[in-house]
Amino acid sequence: MDYAAESLRLHKEWQGKIEVVCRAPLETRDDLSLAYTPGVAQPCLEIQKNPDKSYELTRRSNLVAVVTDGTAVLGLGDIGPEAGMPVMEGKCALLKAFGGVDAIPLCIRSKEVDDIVRTVSLLAGSFGGINLEDISAPRCFEVERRLKKCCDIPVFHDDQHGTAIVVAAAFLNACRLTGRKPGEVRAVINGAGAAGTAIAMFLMKMGVGEMIMCDRAGTLVDGAAGLSKAHQELAAITNPRRVSGPLAAAVQGADLFVGVSAPGVLSAEMVRSMNRDPMVFAMANPVPEILPGEAKAAGAAIVGTGRSDYPNQINNVLAFPGIFRGALDARATDINDDMQQAAARAIADYVPANELTVDYILPSALDKGVASAVAHAVAEAARSSGVARV
Amino acid sequence: MDYAAESLRLHKEWQGKIEVVCRAPLETRDDLSLAYTPGVAQPCLEIQKNPDKSYELTRRSNLVAVVTDGTAVLGLGDIGPEAGMPVMEGKCALLKAFGGVDAIPLCIRSKEVDDIVRTVSLLAGSFGGINLEDISAPRCFEVERRLKKCCDIPVFHDDQHGTAIVVAAAFLNACRLTGRKPGEVRAVINGAGAAGTAIAMFLMKMGVGEMIMCDRAGTLVDGAAGLSKAHQELAAITNPRRVSGPLAAAVQGADLFVGVSAPGVLSAEMVRSMNRDPMVFAMANPVPEILPGEAKAAGAAIVGTGRSDYPNQINNVLAFPGIFRGALDARATDINDDMQQAAARAIADYVPANELTVDYILPSALDKGVASAVAHAVAEAARSSGVARV
Repeated sequence: MDYAAESLRLHKEWQGKIEVVCRAPLETRDDLSLAYTPGVAQPCLEIQKNPDKSYELTRRSNLVAVVTDGTAVLGLGDIGPEAGMPVMEGKCALLKAFGGVDAIPLCIRSKEVDDIVRTVSLLAGSFGGINLEDISAPRCFEVERRLKKCCDIPVFHDDQHGTAIVVAAAFLNACRLTGRKPGEVRAVINGAGAAGTAIAMFLMKMGVGEMIMCDRAGTLVDGAAGLSKAHQELAAITNPRRVSGPLAAAVQGADLFVGVSAPGVLSAEMVRSMNRDPMVFAMANPVPEILPGEAKAAGAAIVGTGRSDYPNQINNVLAFPGIFRGALDARATDINDDMQQAAARAIADYVPANELTVDYILPSALDKGVASAVAHAVAEAARSSGVARV
Repeated sequence: MDYAAESLRLHKEWQGKIEVVCRAPLETRDDLSLAYTPGVAQPCLEIQKNPDKSYELTRRSNLVAVVTDGTAVLGLGDIGPEAGMPVMEGKCALLKAFGGVDAIPLCIRSKEVDDIVRTVSLLAGSFGGINLEDISAPRCFEVERRLKKCCDIPVFHDDQHGTAIVVAAAFLNACRLTGRKPGEVRAVINGAGAAGTAIAMFLMKMGVGEMIMCDRAGTLVDGAAGLSKAHQELAAITNPRRVSGPLAAAVQGADLFVGVSAPGVLSAEMVRSMNRDPMVFAMANPVPEILPGEAKAAGAAIVGTGRSDYPNQINNVLAFPGIFRGALDARATDINDDMQQAAARAIADYVPANELTVDYILPSALDKGVASAVAHAVAEAARSSGVARV
């Protein structure tokens, strides 16, 4: 199928992938008096007394804003807020279809961190959660950090944490299959933007043995000249052996390769230079860092990609609908590390132990049961970590 | 019925009066590839080339934000943004039920004009229109004026203009019934806040003969001491005879009384002091400035109120759903005077000439045909006044 042409045709036909509908009847005089004036004054007064009642008396309890500035949309880059909208609507549609979460896109006409933070924080009372989407690095880090501090609702940057959670789930099952413990794993991540950074942080929190970050210019080494502030911070906590040089140098002897970078940058030779039974997650889209067949031929024990036409698709849709479902169910004030780790474990555990194989380390992206399992684990973790309000 | 208690019970049951649903199927691998990656890149690129395509390829063409800061909610006053939400959701539900318009509430946690203007203007690319709601005067005037200037989508403050349009429709039919031309009418408006000011401006644009504004302190007289800036501006263009004193002085000999003020402030004696066959629109809620029976007994030819249990209910729902429907249908960049005047005439003309009586000067607020008639007139006016894009 020509996805581009067919998608364009369908988008014209759909005229929007989401729609707002009424839940209250509005046919009779009494209907109007109850859903609107004068009756509506009573729920208003209840919320005035206790603003938390807005979770019981309005849609806020199930409503998430999907926020972008349009600067890092898919692989398309800075295409502007309006042009980012089809992706945001898609995200909203997925949140509903997989997580039962109501979501609406808010595309902000400014790239200033101050503007984005101010806009979202002023609107936080209207929503139960905020999903940041397709905001370019390194601004996305500051936007998220500041919003998490000033908002009383959960703020989640899916490009970072959603990706990290699904990679972590794949990693957990790949370790099971290859008989590794996380502490024994030497990992290399190629691509040190929003997703790569989040994956690194996440795997380190899981206790991975060694982490080396690589970028177009080679490995990140603490103290090296010319690093951005974000890369300096990363270099300071990774690459303990101070391996320098290109990707080929980094992957020698490594157990895990994670690519969030560019087509074809991992050669068969590099895979052969890795430790026994290496794990390769090559997620560049649409063309991965190495094709699965080539990686397998070079000795990779397990290969995952971002694509649905190969086994082990590493797709954020396994994570974000259940994460927001769980956070909303617990009326959480945050989506914290505990909740994210719980989500990763729930995704990994969703694959039955007796069905786990090198070609089946993650549930299907189409399996709508995953979100329920994730939601349950996330809500539990919210409660046990003290960020739940119900 | 105890509307307060029953409304509260229903709001708990509804858990929100609006809901976001999917319009695109998301069951198969192809569904995901078409509604989301990789297919979605194509509509994104189309919009990047021409941002107006967002009207064809996303829900923007049918989506309105209902924006408040919670400072003037119903008769409840400044109850805060979260507490205003049930009213905003009610508005959204009415927009959908009567106008087929998708709408979502945005409650802003700031009373600063700069914050409200900045927030809305940064989000304008996500919506096809903005409905301002329950923002207190005089800030609402500046918010609207600045937003109309900086936004490329229509901005409409319903508390002002929606009310004015429906009053104007009632006025047109009341003039027909009492054999008056607008130019012969001496009008008094009691209440010089957002609604009163807008009604005055609207009726003056219709060519009303004389307009006197009255507030708690009495009539507004040009040059009088102690007037606010907004009231000075009003006084400068009204009350040409410089009538001073309380409401009783203003209404002597008047043809039309419009009350957007407080219960019981118009006495039977005052009605008796008006011109022959006076028209009385007493819209204080829930208790009007004078009860219809009392006004009729004192000689009023026509009485309208804001209530559904008396004839001639002057209810904004006759206007705003059709106005937004028409503005969106024409992809208008503004909701200008021509469009508003067209809406008022369409509402008035919706009552068939042979059915027009003193107790039937406005269509029923429950008649969903009104919005279509209004939408048609508004879209036509948008086109003929040059603000339509389709």
